[in-house]
Amino acid sequence: MSEFAITFKPIGVIRSDHVSAQEIPIQPNYAKGCKGRAIVFLEFEEGLRDLDGFSHIYLIYHFHQAESPKLIVKPFLQDVERGIFSTRTPCRPNAIGLSVLELVRREGNVLHLDGMDILDGTPLIDIKPYTAKFDRIETSRNGWQDEVDEETARLRGRRGYRGGSSS
Amino acid sequence: MSEFAITFKPIGVIRSDHVSAQEIPIQPNYAKGCKGRAIVFLEFEEGLRDLDGFSHIYLIYHFHQAESPKLIVKPFLQDVERGIFSTRTPCRPNAIGLSVLELVRREGNVLHLDGMDILDGTPLIDIKPYTAKFDRIETSRNGWQDEVDEETARLRGRRGYRGGSSS
Repeated sequence: MSEFAITFKPIGVIRSDHVSAQEIPIQPNYAKGCKGRAIVFLEFEEGLRDLDGFSHIYLIYHFHQAESPKLIVKPFLQDVERGIFSTRTPCRPNAIGLSVLELVRREGNVLHLDGMDILDGTPLIDIKPYTAKFDRIETSRNGWQDEVDEETARLRGRRGYRGGSSS
Repeated sequence: MSEFAITFKPIGVIRSDHVSAQEIPIQPNYAKGCKGRAIVFLEFEEGLRDLDGFSHIYLIYHFHQAESPKLIVKPFLQDVERGIFSTRTPCRPNAIGLSVLELVRREGNVLHLDGMDILDGTPLIDIKPYTAKFDRIETSRNGWQDEVDEETARLRGRRGYRGGSSS
């Protein structure tokens, strides 16, 4: 294997109502109505130009409070052990997170977002536009996720979140 | 801003027919029929369990041959200057790439993929399942991408790729 290290620096920080890692909705679609913000450091603000033309964006971020990496985990939505790469669980070999959020509006270096499923204070690594052409894929199989019924997923997915919102 | 650095180590390497950065199709949907592989280092193989239940997966990787970061770029698909975060261009503040590929099959630590739009030898950072529930989003606006007609996108998108495939 390679010992070569790849180093990134945060381009900003996530602000959300989620201050406990155990109570975060597990994906944006279980976090509808959860508002939050991505505060991009001023030196990168120019790079946000044209982003507000997109209704949805990817945030790539560092799971900075993830536990030590595991290769086999029980995902939040199912009590069955699964390979880490078939889940979105934080305790991965590289603690990197990916969410698709709705971009409500941009104010300078601040992105106002809906569907926030990210811990407050999380370091932001990258932002990419979500485009239907590239990212809205017809899947034929959704693995173990197809075994989780929607009611269970919704209840487990929202976890500690009891409603309300912030900006 | 934060000077805090985030360090990742490759979990594997991408193998593809694309050996020149200038000739890579720019997104998987312009790379249909382009086969390739993700070779995951053996120490992480156990984490691939259950992944082959998914027809599509996200690869997160290091644009290891990206030019110096720019905040304003002309994307491949349009001769108009755009903010880097509204594009998928490699020369980003953090040179991190994201593609959704079709997982054709898994053989041990090797993932056989279709829609390969990644340079041969690229370090792989993470793998996540693509699930319709989380990732297939109804967008209402696709920014400047909506201005690019499909014929132009298809011609520019395939770039140097002339057909043929490998595994």
